[in-house]
Order: sequence, then C-alpha cells, then structure tokens
Amino acid sequence: MARRGRRSSTRHGQHASNGIAQLPFKQPFNRNAPFEIASAEQINAIHEATLTVLEQTGINFLWDEARSILKQAGAMVEDGSPTVKFNRQFVMDKLKSIPASFTLHARNPEHTMQIGGDAIVVTPVASAPNCSNLDKGRVTGNYEDFSNLIKLAQSLNCIHMVGGYPVEPVDIRPNVRHLDAIAAMLRFTDKTPYCYALGSARIKDGIEMVKIARDIDEAQLLQEPSIITIVNANSPLQYDIPMLKGATEMCARRQPVIFTPFTLAGAMAPITIAGALVQQNAEALAGLVYSQCVNQGAPVVYGSFTSNVDMKTGSPAFGTPEYVKATIISGQLARLYNVPIRASNANASNAPDGQSVYESQMSLWACLLGKINIIQHGAGWLEGGLCASYEKMIIDAEMLQMLYAFLEPVNFDTDELAVDAIATVGAGNHYFQSPHTMTRYQNAFYAPMLSDWSNFENWQDNGSLTTMQRANKIWKTLLADYQAPPFDAERDAKLTQYINARKQAGGVDD
Amino acid sequence: MARRGRRSSTRHGQHASNGIAQLPFKQPFNRNAPFEIASAEQINAIHEATLTVLEQTGINFLWDEARSILKQAGAMVEDGSPTVKFNRQFVMDKLKSIPASFTLHARNPEHTMQIGGDAIVVTPVASAPNCSNLDKGRVTGNYEDFSNLIKLAQSLNCIHMVGGYPVEPVDIRPNVRHLDAIAAMLRFTDKTPYCYALGSARIKDGIEMVKIARDIDEAQLLQEPSIITIVNANSPLQYDIPMLKGATEMCARRQPVIFTPFTLAGAMAPITIAGALVQQNAEALAGLVYSQCVNQGAPVVYGSFTSNVDMKTGSPAFGTPEYVKATIISGQLARLYNVPIRASNANASNAPDGQSVYESQMSLWACLLGKINIIQHGAGWLEGGLCASYEKMIIDAEMLQMLYAFLEPVNFDTDELAVDAIATVGAGNHYFQSPHTMTRYQNAFYAPMLSDWSNFENWQDNGSLTTMQRANKIWKTLLADYQAPPFDAERDAKLTQYINARKQAGGVDD
Repeated sequence: MARRGRRSSTRHGQHASNGIAQLPFKQPFNRNAPFEIASAEQINAIHEATLTVLEQTGINFLWDEARSILKQAGAMVEDGSPTVKFNRQFVMDKLKSIPASFTLHARNPEHTMQIGGDAIVVTPVASAPNCSNLDKGRVTGNYEDFSNLIKLAQSLNCIHMVGGYPVEPVDIRPNVRHLDAIAAMLRFTDKTPYCYALGSARIKDGIEMVKIARDIDEAQLLQEPSIITIVNANSPLQYDIPMLKGATEMCARRQPVIFTPFTLAGAMAPITIAGALVQQNAEALAGLVYSQCVNQGAPVVYGSFTSNVDMKTGSPAFGTPEYVKATIISGQLARLYNVPIRASNANASNAPDGQSVYESQMSLWACLLGKINIIQHGAGWLEGGLCASYEKMIIDAEMLQMLYAFLEPVNFDTDELAVDAIATVGAGNHYFQSPHTMTRYQNAFYAPMLSDWSNFENWQDNGSLTTMQRANKIWKTLLADYQAPPFDAERDAKLTQYINARKQAGGVDD
Repeated sequence: MARRGRRSSTRHGQHASNGIAQLPFKQPFNRNAPFEIASAEQINAIHEATLTVLEQTGINFLWDEARSILKQAGAMVEDGSPTVKFNRQFVMDKLKSIPASFTLHARNPEHTMQIGGDAIVVTPVASAPNCSNLDKGRVTGNYEDFSNLIKLAQSLNCIHMVGGYPVEPVDIRPNVRHLDAIAAMLRFTDKTPYCYALGSARIKDGIEMVKIARDIDEAQLLQEPSIITIVNANSPLQYDIPMLKGATEMCARRQPVIFTPFTLAGAMAPITIAGALVQQNAEALAGLVYSQCVNQGAPVVYGSFTSNVDMKTGSPAFGTPEYVKATIISGQLARLYNVPIRASNANASNAPDGQSVYESQMSLWACLLGKINIIQHGAGWLEGGLCASYEKMIIDAEMLQMLYAFLEPVNFDTDELAVDAIATVGAGNHYFQSPHTMTRYQNAFYAPMLSDWSNFENWQDNGSLTTMQRANKIWKTLLADYQAPPFDAERDAKLTQYINARKQAGGVDD
C-alpha cells in the first residue's frame, strides 16, 4: 500500500504560514441540475446524425491491427480500406459496457479521485511547446520549467491530477523524454500522473513506472486505474497509428483513455456548431466503441474540444460563445451515453491579461454548466495551448477556487435565516459585533488567494500591483516553499533502476 | 412622436468604418430555463422568514407621509414610531398588482426596451465618485468625464439605457447638478435617462425634462414609463426621507422604481447568505408594497445587491462566490413574486486588470443564470463602485457581447447538422473551401471587438498590446467618431428654457 502523505489541508490550508490562502484539497462535486441549451429532440437530432455518419461515411482507423479488432467485434471493415463503418445497433451495444464512473488511484490515497457523475477533477496546463513568466519572458519548453510547473501543480490544492507535460521538455531526447518526465511526475507530485499515447512503448513504460511508484502488481493495476492518457482523433474522421497503439495498450491494461476529437468548426470540422458536434460525436463514439472492443468495461472518457477558428486567419479561438455552446451541448451528449466527459479551461490570449481571464471564465462556466468531469488545462494555459504561463496558473487557481466555493451549497437552517438576529440588531445598526456574526466570521466567506480587496489608497501605497504582478509573487512563494511529497526510498531506487535500464536499452525506437 | 433616429446597426454594425466590431443594437433575451441552486422548500423558507420579519420586526419608514400612506392602505403603523409592520396577507395582496413586465420608452423608439420576463437590459457604470483611464489616471468625477462616458454608452450597442451618472460631476453645484446632468443624458444619448431619487424636486425636474425631450404630455407619460430611478434601503430595515419622497413622486407618475436594499452580509445584513437574503427580501418587499400603496399597478423592480464584506477590513467584496449564490437565489425569489429583477456587474478591483475581469465574469454569469432583467453597472465599474473606468467599459462591452452571442440559440436544422458535408469532405481533409463553409463563413461566429486572436509573433510585432491597452485605443476611437443622436431643435430649445428657468429659481433647495 502507498504510504499516507501528510494532509494537504494542513500543508496548504487557509492559514498556511506563507500567507497564501488556499482551500483544503478536496474533490469538488457539482450537485446542481445540468444547464441545458438543446432540447431532447435537438440532442436526438445530433445523435441520429452521428449514427448516420458512423454507418454511411465511417471513420478511418489507420492501424491494421485496430481494424482487425473492430472487424472481429462486428464492425464493417473492408480489406484494403482504412475506413471502418459502424452499424447503429453495434454502436449502442458497445457503449453499454462503458463505466459511468470510475476511481483513479493516486500514489497518495488522499489524491485518489472519482471520475464521472457529479465529480470534478482539474489538471494543470498540458503539452505546451513554450512557457512564460514575467521574469524571463517566453522561452521554449525545457525540463526546469516542466519541473517547476509540476511542483506548482502539487502545491496548488485546486489541482487534482496531472494532465500531461505542462510544457514539453525539449532539452531531453525524444526517445527517453517520457522516462524522465514520468519519473518527475511521480516524484514531484503524488497526484495521478499522465502518459502520452505515442505508440505502445511509452505507455508500457508509464504503466510500469506507476506500478513501481504505487508498489502494485498487474492484478491490482487492472482493478485500479492509476495513470491516464488522451487519444486525439486526427480530425476529420481519422485515428492515426501511434494514438491507436497507445489507446490499445491502455485499454488492454484497463487504464483510462480520454477520446478527444480535434473539431475546430470551420477548419477540421463543419463551420456550424451543430455540424461540428455531429463530427465530434462520431469521432468520440468511434473511439469509445473501439475501447470496448479491445477490452469490454475499460474505463474511458468522452472528450469535448469543439471550438471555432478565426475565419480571417484560420487560427483557433477559445472561450468563445461558440465554445460555450458546444461544451454545454457536449455535456448533454455525454449524459445521453452515460459516460464521463472532459473539456478544457481554454483561451487564445497571448498574455495572462484580461482577455485570457474572460475567455477562461467563459470556458470554466461552460464546464460547470455542462457538468464536465475532467477540466483539462485547468490552470496555466495561454495562446490556444502554445504557451504555459506561471502567472496564468495562479490566476486560474483563484478562479477555480471561487467556482469550488460557489458549488458548496447554501445553508438554509433556521439559525442561518437569522430572523432573530435581524430583530435583535434592528433598523439602522450594523452586524459587525452581533453574536450571530461573531460565531461565524472566521469561515463565513471565501478568502481569496490573489484578489486584492484593499481600497485604492492602500492598494496604491502597496505599489499598485496588478493581478499579473501579484500572481508572479505567489508562484515564487509557492516554489520557494515547495516540499516534495514523501516517497518510499526503496520505490525511488527501483524507479531509478527501471529508467536506467530502459535508457541503456536505447529508450523508445520511434 | 419622437423622430426616428438612424439605425444603430448601421452606425455601429460589425462592419463599422472605424474597424470596431460591434453587434447591432438589439435587446437580448434569455430564453434558457433558470438555473436554480435553492429548492422550492428553501425558497419558501426565505419567503416565510421574510414575512415574519415584516410582521414582527417591521421596517422603518422615516418620512411621516409615507407612514400615512401605508397606514391608510392597511399596514400596521403606530403614532410616534417610525416602524411599520406588515401583515402577511397584506404583503401578498399588495404584491399582486405589480406588473410582471413593462415597456420603458426611449426618445429613440429603437431604444425602447422591455423590462421583465426573459428580457435583459444593461446600463453603464453609475454613481462613481472617481473616474480613471490609462492616460490621465484616477481623478475626481467631473462633467467632462461624465459626458465622455455617456457618449461611450450611446456608442456602445451592448448598452441599452442609462443607469445613473456614470461619474458624479462634482464641478457642477449640487442644487442644479441634476439639471445639467439630465440634459446631457437627453442630448448625448437617445437611450432612456435616469434621475436620482434625492427628494421629490429632482424627480419632478427629471420627469419634466424627459417629457420635453420625448414631446409627450402627462397623460402619455402615465401610459409610457420614460425615466427610471433606484431607491436604496438604508439597510438594515430602513428607508430614509429623500429616497421615500423620490419613490413617491416616481410611483405617483407611474415611472419605474428599482427598490434595492444595501445588504452586505456581515456589515449591514446577517453574515449568512440565507440571512442576508431574508433581510434583502424584507426590505425589497416593503419597498414594493409601498409603491403599490402609492399607486396600484405602478411599474417597479426588485433590486438584488447582496454581497459580502472582507471580514478582515470590513470593505465590500463583489463577484465573490457568495455574490453569485445570492444573485441566483434572488432571481428565484423575484420569479416567486413575478416581478422584474435587477442585479449588477460588480467587482472590487482597483485596476481594469485580471481581478476586475474574473470578478465581473462571476457577476455577469450570476446575472445570466439568475435571469436578471436589469444588469446595473454593466460596463465600466471598478473599486466596488468608487471608480468609473474607461478601459473597463470597453472590456465589459466585449464580455457583454460574448454573453449576448451565447444567448442566441444554436440552429439544429438538417443542413446545419452537416451530415452531407462531413461525407463530402471526408477523412483527413479540411473544411476551409467546402461549399458548406463558403456559404456561411462571414457570419458563422462571434467577431470580437477587443480580443486579439493573432499568434504570438504577430501580436509581438504589433507591440504586445495587453487587453487594457487595446481597450484604451477602442474608447478613444469611439469618442473620436462619436456623433450626437438627432434631436429636434424645438425640443432642444425648450429644454434649455426649462433648465434656465429652474436655475434662475435657484435650483433645488436641499
């Protein structure tokens, strides 16, 4: 069994010694009724159109072994063609075995998370080629920044698992990069790690490494999903060979796969929201069906990433009104199929400024209203994914905490309704010293980490620091105070041994 | 009849010659089902607690004539006491005559708005003592900035009516300030003006001036609400004399009054959300009941302003998780009573930076989810209301436009589902030149006014302008291009005549 880590709520509680007000680590649940912007008939129209696409147009599965698996399961595969077509009933039958929710086991059991239902998990930014902060500007991804951002993800209680490399550590050779990166994830954080589905070898390594870190055998791994990946469709209508190999290895070992089509309306998908959603749904369902053909009951997640492009330049836009609509409707679709769903905290801004914030807020409210289970790129994303920002990670953390606080239900108990307190305080007075106030004031309201509520004069006296500048100070404090989570010395040694052996064997042969 | 102004959609459409992409002027409607975070039982608990407060504790009406009006109508008034108590049935009976919705007539009929139901109207910032922009920093309110901000409110299609003085023009003497300020509202914009309920004389002047501007007589005024005001409770549990005089004059002339309690949880209201809402509800219902005693059927609005204070300093906080919850539940209460509701786009930031944006986004989503009818302080508010910001007005305008675009329903027609287009484009291709794209690309997506979607390199080449800096350029362009709306010369002269006569008579005697 994994050794029990110290309580995050003690390390990073609201009264942390560094003065940074964090909520305790706790999985948020969204118990509100879903917000629906499409009627049942409209959702059914997307569903029926999707089944028509799958039946008549089909999806390309470029790996021949994947086609063999699908053919054997009953899909329509013709020799010599990459295209697989799916009978309507076949699709619906295969979707039935997908678990509506599952547990993702972290090496620190306090960071073990539920995926699906009302549960929410949030990951930090993932897969950015560049990173930036106010001190050094924007630089190409590297191992040092990768490590710093993973450490921040460990330190921030609002982040629940890793969602990929926060920034690509390009200073490590590609054939061994995953070994060092996954080792760093396993050592710098005790939240669930991530491995990339770029062929099967990297997935095999990731799984072996998490088995070492959690000290579990294959039988326990099969019972306990412990590492996660995303498989993107090469939209439109195509899954490529490395992704399919990765998906197959993960599903065979019952580790969760998020099937995410890359359906940017007007570019890789129809320009209409309804059409882009039909294509997203067809590609996602094809992936989900494939997972169940590989291994019935394998845990999988519906990935929603539909947004639009700027029609003037073709560049992707995020956090747009179209993105919000697509995400909310995607939530409705995932509930129709009773599968967990992933979307993103996305924006297209080039700086951690106002635009990055309003686009992210649009994305986050879309996730909340769509009852999204996995909020990928939850903290630190900029430039439509091309940059990981230290400051944006802190700004997002504050926004996430505010939303978690919003999800906590209001208490309507008699004493909370305060009829007696209102009578006692009376007209024209104030509540500052009222007993009703005094017994509650310490925890009555959300205490911000980043917001400055001082008046203008005090704010000015303290240097007129903008949100971005305050965020800069916070990540520096968090990094300065960072402590690696406890890690058993024997496992640590085994991990080193495994990595060295794999490196000596030449790493992955691409 | 008022002369028909030029179409705003032509002046400020998406293809405006100044390159600023605005949506055409159009009232937004929120046809989505309301988002409810309190159960029917919980709403009833607030309602019952409210009636208990009104019946047992009562509300102070400091003006003796108001108490006479209430006594005559059947409320419980004792000689020598400012406190009025309300029998439960009396409250429910009086609320019945409030119109569920009404029309607010602008001097340009294209800017006439519906108040209530699914309709939304948004006002600019109001009543700030200071104003700021990046060029001159923060200064005390004055007539020049007042005028500029009113002109921006006219130029921005996302703003539907005036909600007060955007900034207080303190360089005009208080006893005649309202005359110049209302004249400026009537000349610089053809959207509905606002007058302050500071005694009855200012209200009388405001009403006379709008009658001149619209060229209507008293009979038409009584049929057509043409000017609006807010009456704040002097919380807790009190309405003061000037506000009651103003409310009485407005209701007698059937001009709409928004009754807004100032219930900051922990300061002027109980520290619990439920308790603050009970007090807000008691104060608001007392105001609404009073309005119907003055004039049965007078158009009125339920005002929601409940937020919390920073318990460390006592200063107000806005856009907090508590504000979001209070606003959404206030929406549920207003629907219980079938009256229109007002809330705000509020934030407590000292600069138009990230904090101002995420707090505003929280406020705006609360308004949207609560189905708020009047979004007061919709654009330009900073510092919890102590400053009107030119740049924030533009940032808010972009955020408002995005929300209006979100409220437009998705089209699910067969051709929009794009099953044929998906089959035609096929796997691995793109949609840029597809006929399905080409017939739609010009208006497929929301086109931003402020957001910069260029890639990092182009953004850098263009000067690395942040959101705040781009907003600065936009308001300057809008002001440079500002054209006063057409105004009949005869009415203009009459307005001048009225103002001069009132000034010669000494203005208002405070």
